[in-house]
Amino acid sequence: MRFDADLLETLGALLLVKGGMAKRAAATVASHVMGNALRGVDSHGVVRFAQYREQIVEGIFDPAGEATVTSSDDSVIRVDGGGGHGVPAMQIAAETVLERAREQGMATATVINCGHTGRIGAFAETIARGNCLAVITGGGSHARGKPKVAPYGGREGVMSTNPYAFALPGGPTGAVVVDFATSVVAQGKLLAASKTNEPLAPGLILDQSGRPSTDVRDYYGGGVLLPAAGPKGYGLGLIAELLTHGVLGDPRALNWIMIAIDLDRLGAGQPYQARMDAYLDWVKSSAPAEGFDEVLIPGEPEQHCLAERERNGVPVADEVWQEMVTWADRGGIDLSLYPPRLP
Amino acid sequence: MRFDADLLETLGALLLVKGGMAKRAAATVASHVMGNALRGVDSHGVVRFAQYREQIVEGIFDPAGEATVTSSDDSVIRVDGGGGHGVPAMQIAAETVLERAREQGMATATVINCGHTGRIGAFAETIARGNCLAVITGGGSHARGKPKVAPYGGREGVMSTNPYAFALPGGPTGAVVVDFATSVVAQGKLLAASKTNEPLAPGLILDQSGRPSTDVRDYYGGGVLLPAAGPKGYGLGLIAELLTHGVLGDPRALNWIMIAIDLDRLGAGQPYQARMDAYLDWVKSSAPAEGFDEVLIPGEPEQHCLAERERNGVPVADEVWQEMVTWADRGGIDLSLYPPRLP
Repeated sequence: MRFDADLLETLGALLLVKGGMAKRAAATVASHVMGNALRGVDSHGVVRFAQYREQIVEGIFDPAGEATVTSSDDSVIRVDGGGGHGVPAMQIAAETVLERAREQGMATATVINCGHTGRIGAFAETIARGNCLAVITGGGSHARGKPKVAPYGGREGVMSTNPYAFALPGGPTGAVVVDFATSVVAQGKLLAASKTNEPLAPGLILDQSGRPSTDVRDYYGGGVLLPAAGPKGYGLGLIAELLTHGVLGDPRALNWIMIAIDLDRLGAGQPYQARMDAYLDWVKSSAPAEGFDEVLIPGEPEQHCLAERERNGVPVADEVWQEMVTWADRGGIDLSLYPPRLP
Repeated sequence: MRFDADLLETLGALLLVKGGMAKRAAATVASHVMGNALRGVDSHGVVRFAQYREQIVEGIFDPAGEATVTSSDDSVIRVDGGGGHGVPAMQIAAETVLERAREQGMATATVINCGHTGRIGAFAETIARGNCLAVITGGGSHARGKPKVAPYGGREGVMSTNPYAFALPGGPTGAVVVDFATSVVAQGKLLAASKTNEPLAPGLILDQSGRPSTDVRDYYGGGVLLPAAGPKGYGLGLIAELLTHGVLGDPRALNWIMIAIDLDRLGAGQPYQARMDAYLDWVKSSAPAEGFDEVLIPGEPEQHCLAERERNGVPVADEVWQEMVTWADRGGIDLSLYPPRLP
């Protein structure tokens, strides 16, 4: 089933307002979710509306919690999510850190005390489109129990999938956005495999005794996820965890740090955008490997999907739609007034 | 053969002085090289003395080139290596960016126009030991021909092994230092394999037709090295290349960017060091996986080796020692005055 994106966004925002969120915050979250859905990042797409609505009931975030900039010296901006949803907190942080970096060359923002922050590549892209380098990382949830990623050489979970995003302006989509988990795969892939019990690729998980396994049941039976590229993913994950827990304290979900550096200042008059674009063109025109049609610039698959879904609507799985219908019914929303289904 | 580190350092510096380097710059390089050698990073250890001496003859760097801070606004420090060796340039950049970050919360340094910069983890460690987060990356050499790392999904070299280093203070060694190539392995490993023609692990290289191979001869016969963790290493490498070439221009060897952020400012009075150390203790005490004796914190293997080699001397392969003897003879150095060999 395909749905019109604008109408899904309106409905999603309304569900969150019915859960107690302020209209503006709900609109920020819904716009972010639909941005992900349009870009094909379905793990952070429409499925999240019902999940966020449930998280309000479960007390995972406070629908009335409001993100504010609590302090701001020359170089460090602190954002407190007020216990609310993470997307408005990250949005304020990205906009403020970008503004500050444009003024004085560089700035850092910290974000604490908020719920799920959606797709961090979106905030990195906001910063990059302001002609800055963006670096974002998050973590700290080991302090809240059940870390699921092992260190290199270890068999117990000590980290979360601590993601990083890097972004720069330019290229075929206007921004090169690199956004990845420091674990070898995202947890969503294991969840999907658990529904079919198909064997996993080797090198993804250890069973509860610390032995390599390709049976996803071993992961859910007390096993762990491995770090990406062994010591590399472990090192990146550890740095994220130390920064966001060690330096910023216990998180509500995860804590975050965002760095923005103004390329105009860094480049000191160099024709950086033309040189970056020429390089990206050259990379893009290089020969694909066996099994690939073309070389893609990070952010490009999402941009391709965006163009297609803006034309044809956003596909939504039946069960995801049914969850939204259930919440709409509970909230007394007359779905005939919000007919998101495409003809 | 094991040698006394101090005497090797003296001899190494003297070789570089005989090649035309100023005493102070030669001492900086020799101290860095022996720091690597003591830590077991032999790819950046004693083998480099003869290599750097040869690079002077080949014109790869100018022995008389002097690194200077060419401009410095509030947040961006520019270091020009003056065409000289890269280690003194990186050392000045690390010390200056740390000082500036301690003053105003954060700073960025750029380093251009220099030769080989040694082990970047060492400069990240300098910054971390000043209670700052350090982030360093370098690249740009695709513009100088023969890039050897393919993009994800590609089969032509478009990047170098663009390294990253991240560091924070604390833990069992006083600094957590994460330092890695964005390619799946370092080129040194392939060079070592080429001497024995042992099969490589799968997933490291493609042959010249873009097909996966485990025969190292395929790499040297026009093949490419793959990025670490596929799209993750590709993304990180691309960001490095865009920053250091796009923003900073054509490099002599590689160009560099260094970011320092003061943790005292970032943590705003949080007891960050105690919390970081408690977390690292907990990670360290977690159970090892099959085939491992213990979980190590990044930087710890190097620190273990340092303690052992400070006691027992630094092992040097015969052929590496013979190269140094050859250069010493050409420079008229009386080796009996510099008897580095341990009894």
